[in-house]
Amino acid sequence: MRVRIIGIGMGPHQLTPEAAAALRGCDYAVAARKRRDDGLFELRRAVCEAHGLELVAVPDPERDRDAPADYRAAVADWHEARVRAFEQVLAERGGNAAFLVWGDPSLYDSTLRIVDRIGERGEVPVEYDVLPGISAPQLLAARHRIVLHEVGRPVHVTPQRRLAEAVAAGQDNIVVMLGARPAFEGLGEWSVWWGANLGTDTEELVAGRVADVLPRIDAARARAKERAGWVMDTALLRRPS
Amino acid sequence: MRVRIIGIGMGPHQLTPEAAAALRGCDYAVAARKRRDDGLFELRRAVCEAHGLELVAVPDPERDRDAPADYRAAVADWHEARVRAFEQVLAERGGNAAFLVWGDPSLYDSTLRIVDRIGERGEVPVEYDVLPGISAPQLLAARHRIVLHEVGRPVHVTPQRRLAEAVAAGQDNIVVMLGARPAFEGLGEWSVWWGANLGTDTEELVAGRVADVLPRIDAARARAKERAGWVMDTALLRRPS
Repeated sequence: MRVRIIGIGMGPHQLTPEAAAALRGCDYAVAARKRRDDGLFELRRAVCEAHGLELVAVPDPERDRDAPADYRAAVADWHEARVRAFEQVLAERGGNAAFLVWGDPSLYDSTLRIVDRIGERGEVPVEYDVLPGISAPQLLAARHRIVLHEVGRPVHVTPQRRLAEAVAAGQDNIVVMLGARPAFEGLGEWSVWWGANLGTDTEELVAGRVADVLPRIDAARARAKERAGWVMDTALLRRPS
Repeated sequence: MRVRIIGIGMGPHQLTPEAAAALRGCDYAVAARKRRDDGLFELRRAVCEAHGLELVAVPDPERDRDAPADYRAAVADWHEARVRAFEQVLAERGGNAAFLVWGDPSLYDSTLRIVDRIGERGEVPVEYDVLPGISAPQLLAARHRIVLHEVGRPVHVTPQRRLAEAVAAGQDNIVVMLGARPAFEGLGEWSVWWGANLGTDTEELVAGRVADVLPRIDAARARAKERAGWVMDTALLRRPS
């Protein structure tokens, strides 16, 4: 059977023509549904409906958060349970399946790992390809009308929990993804361009010197969460020159 | 007047619906035309024609490459000459102008700097916004069906001439943009996912251990250049674990 991993960008207005054509060529789409929905399942459903595609919910297995004794093993078990949940749907349905990735499949997304693992297991023979989508850092930059780096300089993209490492290593332009509000401690003099729920109608944007705008970021986070029921942050931090 | 900075992705099949709508709402588009055309002007023209938009060529000023005595001043002069060339077209035409950015305006693109500078100069009052587009690293990752980083790890994006710095600083996942073939010296054991002229019909892809695939990359580069008349590389380099 065929699997297409499709980046849908930060909303239906960013779905590329090649991604739309791929969707129309599929028989159905699959997406994990968490018990506590983060809102992204319904956003995916809206994209599918716009293209006449059924969205099959794959129940996301519970992660055993009470067993930190062997954290890595617990995460591995959970990943394997997710793989089997998707595999089961593919085995039952066959045909051409779309995996819808919010943003872009190349950054902090587990879809490729899941599909790779299904392929390794060999229970359901899959062929797959990947179509890119607009990612959160790009939309953040567009909204703030900035380039992510100074002329000729690098940009460092990191999950929030490695931000302190990147700062200590001397990075000047740091895109922080995933997570709670970035830990801004000690970065008061840095510049920040921050966004939450980018591309949705609960989007929030704040920019300025960290020490000045922190209260506004906290208020905007709370507002996004209140309105959407969930909040996802992205930020660019720039070291003072 | 209004300026819209529009990321057109790596080809017309990646132009998002919001970017297409923005194009249709403009009166004309502008793009620099180099004396030695890199092929991107004609690609932009094709996008404009598909949306019924005139593309106005802005002659790219000559850069004085014989005066390295004051390199920074020469670059600054050249940048200012570009700004004035665009400003002149906007002043003459007025209305709603589109700046078409190949890829995404947030990464290694000078359009935002040009428009910001026109705004600073104040000769032509401009309001502007930015729409994101699929960038080369995303398409590279999609073609190779990879995530740009290992689970939970950072990814470092850099122009080619700062690659050695990034390696020395201990970066494990390095996206190299702009330029000639990345300088792979000393990286024989690293993994590389390489692409040239991504999204066009002269696209080339090579992946493997650097020492193994270097001859294939050189041959593919030469082939792309021979066929298209120009070559643009992007690569992901990953440190051996």
